[in-house]
Amino acid sequence: MARTAVVDRVEKRYQMLVRFGQKLHGVVRLRPLLTLLADEVRRIVGAARCSIFLVDEARRELWTPVAQGLDARDLHLPLGQGLIGHVVAAGAAVRVADVYRDPRFNPAVDRHTGFKTRNVMAVPLKDRSGRTFGVFQALNKRQGLDFDAEDEGLLRILAGLAAAAVESARLYEELRDSHVETIQRLARTAEYRDAKDTAAHLRSIGRYSRLIARGFGLSDGEVESIECASPLHDIGKVGIRDAVLLKTGPLTAAETSEMRRHTSFGWEILSEAKSPLLRLAAEIAWAHHERFDGRGYPRGLKGGKIPPAARIVAVADVLDALTVERAYKRAWGFEESARYILNEGGRQFDPKVVAAFRRALEPLRQAWKERRSRAPGSR
Amino acid sequence: MARTAVVDRVEKRYQMLVRFGQKLHGVVRLRPLLTLLADEVRRIVGAARCSIFLVDEARRELWTPVAQGLDARDLHLPLGQGLIGHVVAAGAAVRVADVYRDPRFNPAVDRHTGFKTRNVMAVPLKDRSGRTFGVFQALNKRQGLDFDAEDEGLLRILAGLAAAAVESARLYEELRDSHVETIQRLARTAEYRDAKDTAAHLRSIGRYSRLIARGFGLSDGEVESIECASPLHDIGKVGIRDAVLLKTGPLTAAETSEMRRHTSFGWEILSEAKSPLLRLAAEIAWAHHERFDGRGYPRGLKGGKIPPAARIVAVADVLDALTVERAYKRAWGFEESARYILNEGGRQFDPKVVAAFRRALEPLRQAWKERRSRAPGSR
Repeated sequence: MARTAVVDRVEKRYQMLVRFGQKLHGVVRLRPLLTLLADEVRRIVGAARCSIFLVDEARRELWTPVAQGLDARDLHLPLGQGLIGHVVAAGAAVRVADVYRDPRFNPAVDRHTGFKTRNVMAVPLKDRSGRTFGVFQALNKRQGLDFDAEDEGLLRILAGLAAAAVESARLYEELRDSHVETIQRLARTAEYRDAKDTAAHLRSIGRYSRLIARGFGLSDGEVESIECASPLHDIGKVGIRDAVLLKTGPLTAAETSEMRRHTSFGWEILSEAKSPLLRLAAEIAWAHHERFDGRGYPRGLKGGKIPPAARIVAVADVLDALTVERAYKRAWGFEESARYILNEGGRQFDPKVVAAFRRALEPLRQAWKERRSRAPGSR
Repeated sequence: MARTAVVDRVEKRYQMLVRFGQKLHGVVRLRPLLTLLADEVRRIVGAARCSIFLVDEARRELWTPVAQGLDARDLHLPLGQGLIGHVVAAGAAVRVADVYRDPRFNPAVDRHTGFKTRNVMAVPLKDRSGRTFGVFQALNKRQGLDFDAEDEGLLRILAGLAAAAVESARLYEELRDSHVETIQRLARTAEYRDAKDTAAHLRSIGRYSRLIARGFGLSDGEVESIECASPLHDIGKVGIRDAVLLKTGPLTAAETSEMRRHTSFGWEILSEAKSPLLRLAAEIAWAHHERFDGRGYPRGLKGGKIPPAARIVAVADVLDALTVERAYKRAWGFEESARYILNEGGRQFDPKVVAAFRRALEPLRQAWKERRSRAPGSR
């Protein structure tokens, strides 16, 4: 090879590495990162398919995200089987020119995915301490060729860089799960004195809000945020005395106005947060009893002055309140409750939110059924 | 240059890049990452000093971590001044052979740090959308040389890779702040009915616990976790009725045993969490009223059977309780409270925790003074 050709080739790899590193920029969520890495590496090493499998020790399996249309249906494989299992167990790469002649290969995966594997190259993803936590796999070298030693070297290097990003994303994901979980516990804590079906209620509020928010046309991120923040809508109830909160008979006028203060207490507890999720929850807590026609509380806000998330949760909250039994009322059916809500567009509720509610009617009915099938009174 | 020399040089840069990418492995916290990046790049480009400045839009400044012994004293510069300010404003690199001849250079920084800057090379750190969020700066090329165009190219590439890692770490840090904040709000929510100096009390518990945990010889991470989790120790009080929780007179035997259930309620609220911080908080909530001699509640655990974090928070909680005024007692002074605690080693408290308390006496006194100087009754 001529001098310039060699230099060009090494220089090209160098530039490729620079671009590869930059592509990972700001991708902290695990699934998008795994998909991005698989795509990039597939292109770079010239494979027909590429996937990253991660070890789930607790479940004794390896999984990888598989995007199929809108739904993410992951592929799960039992740990310790097949070629990938071999890579995990040995902590070393494999390269097989004809997989159907290799006894370690599990043809069931091909039957499952409908993809015909010809040759495979797979390298371990190792964490800082050298433990294998995943496998980077490339299938079927393009143009009918075999993967060679240079391809393997390249995959090793890319896997080394990818491992760092994947590990960071895993830590980010764990922390995010912790954050969401803490918000859920915060919601449960606030309703701890009110021993009725709290957990089921909070879960429903989240699910109903998510479905309506999606029908409203919000982005995936906004929908996820509303689902997570909505269970905090009644957090201000911690500020209400037992004598009012736990009273079974009808409330006096004074007691009613005390009870209504839970909206302002909620704002007091949650506002001025640095966390975007808590700030959203503060808006919801403060304004989920406002009415579109301005006759709600605590501020009598009207129409578009009410934050959108609060307009959405207002509907979710009423749906849940109507469909459960209380000391002072029977449980309404889903159709009856839905009719009430559809009828209140422009009065109690934002007509646009009611339209979103109508669009989400089928999944809402499904969520309502699941909630009803769970035993009430559990928390 | 001979063919092999050129190939070697490009190959070397390639390998350097691979190693650089791998070094970042699993470093998700911002400060350690900035320090690591600065060290690596200093070595690679052959500079005497290297630092990463980040833009803080809210404070209109640039800051960089400066490690000086144990204390991290960051360096802050007003935005829009000096060479670095120029890099931020222009979004472009600068390279200056003799800074004292460049009017953009601010000699005050040298006077502040005691470092004599000769030449500078600085490139912007840009986020995904191309916005400059920081500056990567190298000072004084080694052996009295100047930075050349190749050095600048190298710094650009390293800054490109570093930017991705720094942005991820920033997002991680923001999420972590949100998580810690949510835990604090959870603690405040739980004590919302008990309107006395809650915020001050929770802050003190955290600070006292941190100081004692440090004296106990726990790692920085463990100390940080205990500081964060300890304010949740009384979260189970949400399960106590107003009639008992808010009673001003002495409690009857039945009321006392009801009140003591706050430890088990706390466990119920926090246990089985995925979040390591909440799991730690669950242990603390359940066991912070156990006594070293086994005469505590709710389980009558003895000595080493009591989780270490609970043994530490037990002392912090008593210190705070003694030093504030209550309906039934005057506020004790710091010395008097400390004597009580030192005297209870082996009885109420773990002698090792009491020894840690003794070692931390001076900073504890300081924290107590600060707590006293804040107005009580605020929440």
